[in-house]
Amino acid sequence: MTGVRRTILVVGGLAAGPSAASKAARTDPAARIVLFEQSEAISYGICEIPYYIGGEVREEDLVVHTAESLRREKGVDVRLLNRVEEVLPARRRIRVRELGTGRTYEESYDRLILATGARPRVLGLDGENARNVFSIRSLDGAIALNTYLISEHPQRAVIIGAGYVGLEMAEALRTRGLDVTLLHNTDLPLEGMETPARELIRDELAAHQVNLVPSATVVGLKTGDRQAVTHVLTPDRTFPAEVVIVAIGVEPNSELASRAGIRTGVRGGILTDRRQATSAENVFAAGDCCEVRNLVTNRWMYAPLATLASRAGWVAGENAAGGRAFFPGALNAALVRVFSQEAVRIGLSVREASEAGMSPVAETIFALSRAGQMPGSQRVLVTLIADRRSGKLIGGNVAGQDGAGLRGHALTLAIQQGVTVESFRTSDFGYAPPFSPLWDPLLVAANALARSL
Amino acid sequence: MTGVRRTILVVGGLAAGPSAASKAARTDPAARIVLFEQSEAISYGICEIPYYIGGEVREEDLVVHTAESLRREKGVDVRLLNRVEEVLPARRRIRVRELGTGRTYEESYDRLILATGARPRVLGLDGENARNVFSIRSLDGAIALNTYLISEHPQRAVIIGAGYVGLEMAEALRTRGLDVTLLHNTDLPLEGMETPARELIRDELAAHQVNLVPSATVVGLKTGDRQAVTHVLTPDRTFPAEVVIVAIGVEPNSELASRAGIRTGVRGGILTDRRQATSAENVFAAGDCCEVRNLVTNRWMYAPLATLASRAGWVAGENAAGGRAFFPGALNAALVRVFSQEAVRIGLSVREASEAGMSPVAETIFALSRAGQMPGSQRVLVTLIADRRSGKLIGGNVAGQDGAGLRGHALTLAIQQGVTVESFRTSDFGYAPPFSPLWDPLLVAANALARSL
Repeated sequence: MTGVRRTILVVGGLAAGPSAASKAARTDPAARIVLFEQSEAISYGICEIPYYIGGEVREEDLVVHTAESLRREKGVDVRLLNRVEEVLPARRRIRVRELGTGRTYEESYDRLILATGARPRVLGLDGENARNVFSIRSLDGAIALNTYLISEHPQRAVIIGAGYVGLEMAEALRTRGLDVTLLHNTDLPLEGMETPARELIRDELAAHQVNLVPSATVVGLKTGDRQAVTHVLTPDRTFPAEVVIVAIGVEPNSELASRAGIRTGVRGGILTDRRQATSAENVFAAGDCCEVRNLVTNRWMYAPLATLASRAGWVAGENAAGGRAFFPGALNAALVRVFSQEAVRIGLSVREASEAGMSPVAETIFALSRAGQMPGSQRVLVTLIADRRSGKLIGGNVAGQDGAGLRGHALTLAIQQGVTVESFRTSDFGYAPPFSPLWDPLLVAANALARSL
Repeated sequence: MTGVRRTILVVGGLAAGPSAASKAARTDPAARIVLFEQSEAISYGICEIPYYIGGEVREEDLVVHTAESLRREKGVDVRLLNRVEEVLPARRRIRVRELGTGRTYEESYDRLILATGARPRVLGLDGENARNVFSIRSLDGAIALNTYLISEHPQRAVIIGAGYVGLEMAEALRTRGLDVTLLHNTDLPLEGMETPARELIRDELAAHQVNLVPSATVVGLKTGDRQAVTHVLTPDRTFPAEVVIVAIGVEPNSELASRAGIRTGVRGGILTDRRQATSAENVFAAGDCCEVRNLVTNRWMYAPLATLASRAGWVAGENAAGGRAFFPGALNAALVRVFSQEAVRIGLSVREASEAGMSPVAETIFALSRAGQMPGSQRVLVTLIADRRSGKLIGGNVAGQDGAGLRGHALTLAIQQGVTVESFRTSDFGYAPPFSPLWDPLLVAANALARSL
């Protein structure tokens, strides 16, 4: 492409798309970069929506980049309300529909980056589109929920799903004074964490009067007049609801890719190499539309996390612009705050490790977050998981208050670097009374696990 | 020693000694363990003394183990007011003076553990023993200072030395309402940290009306009537003082060892191998009386830290009792809180790295501690230092609020494990708005440093 201006097209404007477009612009300032987004907004914080609903974040602060700022600061041609309907890799072209006019047009590319994201999973029940049923996945939806809460002041909320978003929404709605019932289909919230952390979060929900209903499968939504759901039904119970939040996860928007013959995985996500290149020449992909390599098992997983979208988007953008960057994979590191408790999971769960053919050994300890006599010292729970054969750390949970979440950073590094328990327990973590006890909870857990290996 | 009960003698009762005695008792429950301590108290928190003076920690909470609890729970024969005056390695005996009666006696050992600790450095000036001059190094001294503050309500304090203890004492005395002047002999506080963190702490001291006087060498202490210092003198200024704190560091109590022909290093500390064995057969040592291997350079350093005393004490105790444990060395990881700011240094400073023959490259960034729009988000400073030749992280500072101290844990692990900047910057640190921005400050710093390498 010497002497010719490179054209890079980016499909999708939420997280990976703007990250890719920005990085591509930095890598090749001469490139022509066009970003297509089918909605009216780009680059807003999905993760922040529960805090917006809870009143901690203002609506105007949800948006990271506007179309204007991305144009002005990065030189990206942002086309809102433009839906990409077809990718033609053999011709290096895409077909786009301008939603305002309905007309379609084609654009050709040198490099294409797919960042088509994910969509909320649905229950598949009648009533799911009622005007008081919300999923937490778009700026529009968030504003609509907030407006509904203000204008119709519902008192009884039913949240379906006790994953990260369900828990954050439970806190947000309790903070706004609603009665909250949280239905989930397992015995404890936060599937993917180990039992001790899950029990801690269960207890925290109870302490804040969230009515947590385990092993509840939703089988119906009863609609009243005014096109609103009035009750959520499980096989044996009926829960009155004035507002319903569906938070049962997301699934990849990969149809555009798969229709173009681009390889996808068993979880439905686009598969890429470490350069974020897809199976189609000159086509890259990143973000929630993709599967990602688990760094511990080297197997594919679906981990729709903002961190990965941003980082993989960066890599896709740099490579599309002629650079050479790699995205190594991910640990599925996820943090959540539930009222005054924090919880983080990193790497494999015991179950995931067993399914991957490893021999997981886990130990859980409870320790104080600071020197015992210091004000602010709180109980922290650490579960560490190692593979008996290699002796390496492969996963863990940290939960509690006062730094539980940030303590996960050291564990992340240990798992990602393949550190053994024996080596981890010699970590020279610093000490001062306002920060930790003389033996940090991470070391207490490592010593306990070393005795079991 | 089959069939014969092993005798393990421990000299010193502050940190490493009780740790060693406890671990020895766990390792060999049949062993006869005697701990000698020349003062009236064992196992109290030196690190906690500034928080006791500041009112955060109660006097009774300073003590971790009493002689009684160590006897009862671990079966250790604790002898207070018994000073060990001579070690005779060839005869495997020690000579002890009972301070109450003045009589001396001998004890024989199978294994001896020296944990004789450190003593405060002194100015070597007349007036240093006046009744209103204190160092922060003993329970007695701490209680005496507290009593003095209550009974004589001094208003003007002069602290000599702006290291960790000097800074913590500045906060403690300001919290109690005193005017505080902090004299130090370099241009910025916290020698050993890099300039940005030191400036941040300087500014925090100013914000709390601590009168920080740089480049001030104390040349005299003027004593008035009532055997109290009234002024602290530098070559060109005179500082009125009603109470004086000398916090210019500590030096190892290694004379007992050196008189016995045990090898010590250029910094005066006892030298041991990784089993904490000294050059004398059957004699181990641990804690502030020892030098320690720097894990980055593999050179000796003097790092009198509670963490190292506790961990090396553990290793000495296990090995003395017939076990096999190793203390790998240390990173000189040190944390401090100064009013609302936290600061941590880990590994080598730029200067230390240069002195060790490395090619240090450093970058400093300022970033937010959480998603920018979240309440509680604060500015965090990260300095990362790498060796240009190896590309490995060798040191760093984190300073600021809201998790600055705990963020050091991940950096500790990275340096200790020999992780390169390139690898560190791919760390899959989790994200949620209440904890961190999408790109944690550690990653922002790593990306900046990667561009400079």
